[in-house]
Amino acid sequence: MTRRGTRSGEFEIIARYFAPLASGAPLAFGLTDDVALLRVRPGRELVITTDTIVAGVHFLSDDPPRTVAQKLLRVNLSDLAAKGATPRAYLMNCSFPRDITEDWLAAFAGGLAADQAEYGIVLIGGDTTATPGPLTLSLTAIGDVPQGGLLRRKGAKVGDGIWVSGNIGDAGLGLRGLKGEELGLSVSLAAHTVERYRIPQPRLALGIKLKGIAHAGLDVSDGLVADLGHMCEASNVGAEIFADGVPLSAASRRALAAGKATIGELLTAGDDYELIFAVAAKDEPRLGRIVSRCNVKATKIGQIIRGRGVAVRDLQGNELKLARRGYVHF
Amino acid sequence: MTRRGTRSGEFEIIARYFAPLASGAPLAFGLTDDVALLRVRPGRELVITTDTIVAGVHFLSDDPPRTVAQKLLRVNLSDLAAKGATPRAYLMNCSFPRDITEDWLAAFAGGLAADQAEYGIVLIGGDTTATPGPLTLSLTAIGDVPQGGLLRRKGAKVGDGIWVSGNIGDAGLGLRGLKGEELGLSVSLAAHTVERYRIPQPRLALGIKLKGIAHAGLDVSDGLVADLGHMCEASNVGAEIFADGVPLSAASRRALAAGKATIGELLTAGDDYELIFAVAAKDEPRLGRIVSRCNVKATKIGQIIRGRGVAVRDLQGNELKLARRGYVHF
Repeated sequence: MTRRGTRSGEFEIIARYFAPLASGAPLAFGLTDDVALLRVRPGRELVITTDTIVAGVHFLSDDPPRTVAQKLLRVNLSDLAAKGATPRAYLMNCSFPRDITEDWLAAFAGGLAADQAEYGIVLIGGDTTATPGPLTLSLTAIGDVPQGGLLRRKGAKVGDGIWVSGNIGDAGLGLRGLKGEELGLSVSLAAHTVERYRIPQPRLALGIKLKGIAHAGLDVSDGLVADLGHMCEASNVGAEIFADGVPLSAASRRALAAGKATIGELLTAGDDYELIFAVAAKDEPRLGRIVSRCNVKATKIGQIIRGRGVAVRDLQGNELKLARRGYVHF
Repeated sequence: MTRRGTRSGEFEIIARYFAPLASGAPLAFGLTDDVALLRVRPGRELVITTDTIVAGVHFLSDDPPRTVAQKLLRVNLSDLAAKGATPRAYLMNCSFPRDITEDWLAAFAGGLAADQAEYGIVLIGGDTTATPGPLTLSLTAIGDVPQGGLLRRKGAKVGDGIWVSGNIGDAGLGLRGLKGEELGLSVSLAAHTVERYRIPQPRLALGIKLKGIAHAGLDVSDGLVADLGHMCEASNVGAEIFADGVPLSAASRRALAAGKATIGELLTAGDDYELIFAVAAKDEPRLGRIVSRCNVKATKIGQIIRGRGVAVRDLQGNELKLARRGYVHF
């Protein structure tokens, strides 16, 4: 790419790579008008969330640009999923190092385009700047929920079952593998963990259907124990979970068996982007019917109790001591 | 500040400095719920805009944190002003270098708090991360307009007068002075230009009242000539402006007289954050009455003509050759 050190570079990037992503959004005015209009459908409310990812902090500098785009978008869609929201639109702020290439930008935009098609979401605005530092990307996602239908962190009740979607711990293993750690995994299992690290699967269909069933919910970004702790804090309750009941992939089970990972590491690794939610025992049959229609599994891993904090117990009921509570970015 | 290199630093920063800024926003849930709800008042539409500023690119690393906060917020409010929108809420993404101090954060939050009070706007969400690079700040502002009341870049008509609020060129002089250039200014005049660089004055009252009068409008961020060019391009028209009619501050006139600045530099310097707008001749009396109620001056600097591009003319009608068209960040 010819980057001429002039501001027109910004306009060219926007026109070539980003404006086409807004072509399906008439209220974004082709990204030429500094603002976009947000319209609300009858009976719905708008929900907004934002996340920033920094090269070398939240993703690896040599991650494929397509998956960087997908991770950027999907970590925000995961926040919407955890609130029961349907994604509608997004804004994106990109600070590009000067050595970014045309190829990188094209693949990055391609990842966004693919996910726009998959999730029915469209770019409506943003800003593009240069930076002397690492690639820094912020994305602000807008979704909607039925009026009064927002799923909150608070609301979990003593006696509720604690449920989690998908598997826990894969993404943390993927990151460790990408950093060169030997985890005793086959190529296929290792590739699975890398994909889980790079391409979160926001649980949107499940999140939408949890309305009226889950008392509280959020997504796992900092690690299962840390994020469950956030739910407990907001809800003024405690939680106990059973390590042996936490759903693990074949890759995680293999790494455990090989002595390359501990259960504590898996429960506190970040980037799972699964949903944690609290459901009363009486609603478990209904939950089962919902889950079966969502192409994702859900597993009960413990229960909400009186008190504070999260206790992780083994099969004998003894509390495991964890070396850390959540993944450390900061 | 004790920064322990752990992710909890993020939560502490949010709890101590940012959550109080959201205390007036019940739908932000104290910034603890990953999302905020956006409500729309009857008869209004939501407008959203976002900008990123990077230390060393869009502001100076040693700019006072209070004014960094104010510039971050106000460049976005200026976008809302140019669209005729009333600011309501904002989200903020902060990537902080590890050496950021408690004092810096407190002053930064203080600048936001002051501007929240001044502009009736409230923090509703965001994200805080670490970065190995320069301080990088994105802000997404949400405002509202009467339904169908959005002022656009397009719509300027041949024969319209071209108007600009305030003075042009001060901020560019302020930046040059901060970088150590000798501009022949008294301390008082130099301080005025620095303030204009650091603390934009979004022309919100004027922008709101331009509805139904201005055919098109935008704010000057890249420089008068470049941004007027954007309006012309969107409107499929050309423009001619008269250099001697462009409103200049005492500081700019002094720098011109001292041979330390050229009119071309003033017309192409960025960061003015004044409004440019196009008004039919028949509406000038009405415009005059509006401006007199807005505590800001507005000056007619030229007219919309057939064709393309922006011609800057001297008193004899000859076109000035400009060394550049806009300010170069990228």
